[in-house]
Amino acid sequence: MLTYAGCRERQARLWQRLPEEILWVLVGDSRHVQYFSNFRINPISFSADQKVLLILTRDGQAILLADNFAKRSATIPYFVDQEVIIPWYTHKKSVTNRDDALCLALTEIEHVWSGTTGLIEPEGVSEMVAAMVAEDAAWQFAEDENQEPTTLGTLIRSLRRSKHADEVELLKSCMRAGEAGHRRAFEVIKPGVSEFEVYLEVQRAAQEAAGCPCIVYGDFRATNAALHKAGGLPTQYRLQDGDLFILDYSVIIHGYRSDFTNTISVGTPSDKIVAQFEACRDAMTAAAAMLKSGVACRDLWQAASAVLESRGFGPLAHHAGHGLSLEHPEPPVLVSESDDELMAGDVITLEPGCYIEGQGGMRFEHNYLITENGSEQLSQHQIGLTPA
Amino acid sequence: MLTYAGCRERQARLWQRLPEEILWVLVGDSRHVQYFSNFRINPISFSADQKVLLILTRDGQAILLADNFAKRSATIPYFVDQEVIIPWYTHKKSVTNRDDALCLALTEIEHVWSGTTGLIEPEGVSEMVAAMVAEDAAWQFAEDENQEPTTLGTLIRSLRRSKHADEVELLKSCMRAGEAGHRRAFEVIKPGVSEFEVYLEVQRAAQEAAGCPCIVYGDFRATNAALHKAGGLPTQYRLQDGDLFILDYSVIIHGYRSDFTNTISVGTPSDKIVAQFEACRDAMTAAAAMLKSGVACRDLWQAASAVLESRGFGPLAHHAGHGLSLEHPEPPVLVSESDDELMAGDVITLEPGCYIEGQGGMRFEHNYLITENGSEQLSQHQIGLTPA
Repeated sequence: MLTYAGCRERQARLWQRLPEEILWVLVGDSRHVQYFSNFRINPISFSADQKVLLILTRDGQAILLADNFAKRSATIPYFVDQEVIIPWYTHKKSVTNRDDALCLALTEIEHVWSGTTGLIEPEGVSEMVAAMVAEDAAWQFAEDENQEPTTLGTLIRSLRRSKHADEVELLKSCMRAGEAGHRRAFEVIKPGVSEFEVYLEVQRAAQEAAGCPCIVYGDFRATNAALHKAGGLPTQYRLQDGDLFILDYSVIIHGYRSDFTNTISVGTPSDKIVAQFEACRDAMTAAAAMLKSGVACRDLWQAASAVLESRGFGPLAHHAGHGLSLEHPEPPVLVSESDDELMAGDVITLEPGCYIEGQGGMRFEHNYLITENGSEQLSQHQIGLTPA
Repeated sequence: MLTYAGCRERQARLWQRLPEEILWVLVGDSRHVQYFSNFRINPISFSADQKVLLILTRDGQAILLADNFAKRSATIPYFVDQEVIIPWYTHKKSVTNRDDALCLALTEIEHVWSGTTGLIEPEGVSEMVAAMVAEDAAWQFAEDENQEPTTLGTLIRSLRRSKHADEVELLKSCMRAGEAGHRRAFEVIKPGVSEFEVYLEVQRAAQEAAGCPCIVYGDFRATNAALHKAGGLPTQYRLQDGDLFILDYSVIIHGYRSDFTNTISVGTPSDKIVAQFEACRDAMTAAAAMLKSGVACRDLWQAASAVLESRGFGPLAHHAGHGLSLEHPEPPVLVSESDDELMAGDVITLEPGCYIEGQGGMRFEHNYLITENGSEQLSQHQIGLTPA
């Protein structure tokens, strides 16, 4: 759960970056509404597809605009100074287009935005809403006169890379839930069990650890000599001796997510499979040893790939990892031509994989918080083809 | 799964309602992109919060605009004549703001929309996208000169009330999944089990019946003499003898959902509780007998409420039901002052409930397809406090 203090700190960082003439901003991306207020419609609710708006003002106010059913479906507590809740549905009268509620809410607080200079988040604010404030609000800005115009959404994404303490705590609760699913996978993966059954068991264990319903997504797929690459949600395929089950999955709690991987051997792994595992593991270890603020992400990819190459499995066929929090993937990306550098506060994954035609594929992954001088490994699941 | 034929029929109905000068529309609400093309980002994926766009042209083309990771996370098959997929993330280079991909995609098919008259869905299209087509596209229109201007989103919502055959089939698969959860609830509800454990069992049964991961949401709450009204996702509360467990829940499959309720008695129900159940059941039966195209929704509410009143349980304290498909609730709404009338193709719920202080609350609910001459009951779960 994000905290009041964290939301206030994030708002303060935003205002430091915006030109002084901007007195209010209108945020519409659900991820960013949450980032600044902890208000988030639960995706496990009847309001999942609905939108809300958040107005932030330079003098420190946060104002939520929503319909009454969106409010009912939201994370609690959330942190705003004022809320304009439109009674879209009262159990008494017919309803109109639910999206109209946001325009009505905006009208009700016209004194806040009308006649003063504002900025909207053009990625997350609908045209219908934007049309209402068009005379007062820009949808692009420049941080100073030497900069190209940019958008509020782009700025917020850049701010998001430096995680605050409450975000890290929330990410850690995602990690604990993810670990529970990985433990359960070791217990249930055996010949005859379907990929889908593994999903159901992992999903249950993760939710039990989280203590609440949450979304569990990722790759729940077997690979083998006949199918050495597979990803995505589970199928009804039943595991066979010799398969490798790639469990690369995420647990979302209040919008934030873990994302770490293990690959489990169905039956005793062959020496070739063990060598493949050791190469992946060592690739991850090599990159992990380099993690700290300022490191070039392309060097991390190179380090992981070099280990695979040195064992005859290289180069790495995909990214070595990526940023992770409210989105997946998000910057920085650990790829061969990346321009990104790690910065303190990044939360990233390292996930080298190796996929051999006629043998099978595997991938292993941990999540890390980047610090000035190194990193903190956030995920603590057991990496390995068989239980320890 | 929506079908190609269904998507084409829905497009044709849309064009019949739009003024002739409009040659293309730009749809951005994820529910409506799916309605016309079956393209939907799986909410159980890393792309859940991302957006795509759909352009429909009067000459019958459907064009999808998306980033490559959104495409990876989508329902398959989907039905478009062309797709513009922007390689937002290639596992090679750094990424920029993911939302920029949609603007780039729009640029790539400028010949389709530039210089001809279009209409955008202002509720679902972001300001950043709308700004690109602003010279060519309106965001309001009037069906004829006697009508007030309206929006594409409002028009599509009205079209959505008349369900097509493929939508009804998809809703029926949601019903089967929902029924499986209700069956499981009878097996697991007993003293000592927590609300959350009931959720996990219902969720699993529903997903097993659906054959895929899907979102399961709703009310999973106990009521009793001390707490006669409760709703929302489960808590860690452990059931006690005498509790009433309200299971009012939905299973979402490809955006569509079931929504039906049963209330289960923990232990043997008292005579008072049975009388309360019979009143609710008979209220539902009374309203169900009236279902057909043309019936005033306020009369349905009145019929259900009258049964409760006649048994001394007072007027119905909430709606008697509501429309259901891509949203929840949606028109028509069965409330005391509703202006809505049932129409053929509506899919609705009937859900009378009764909540008695010092005794407990309960609710029962079925889903129905409205026809010209009556209705088809879509949900087939057992209504009752105890297993049959």
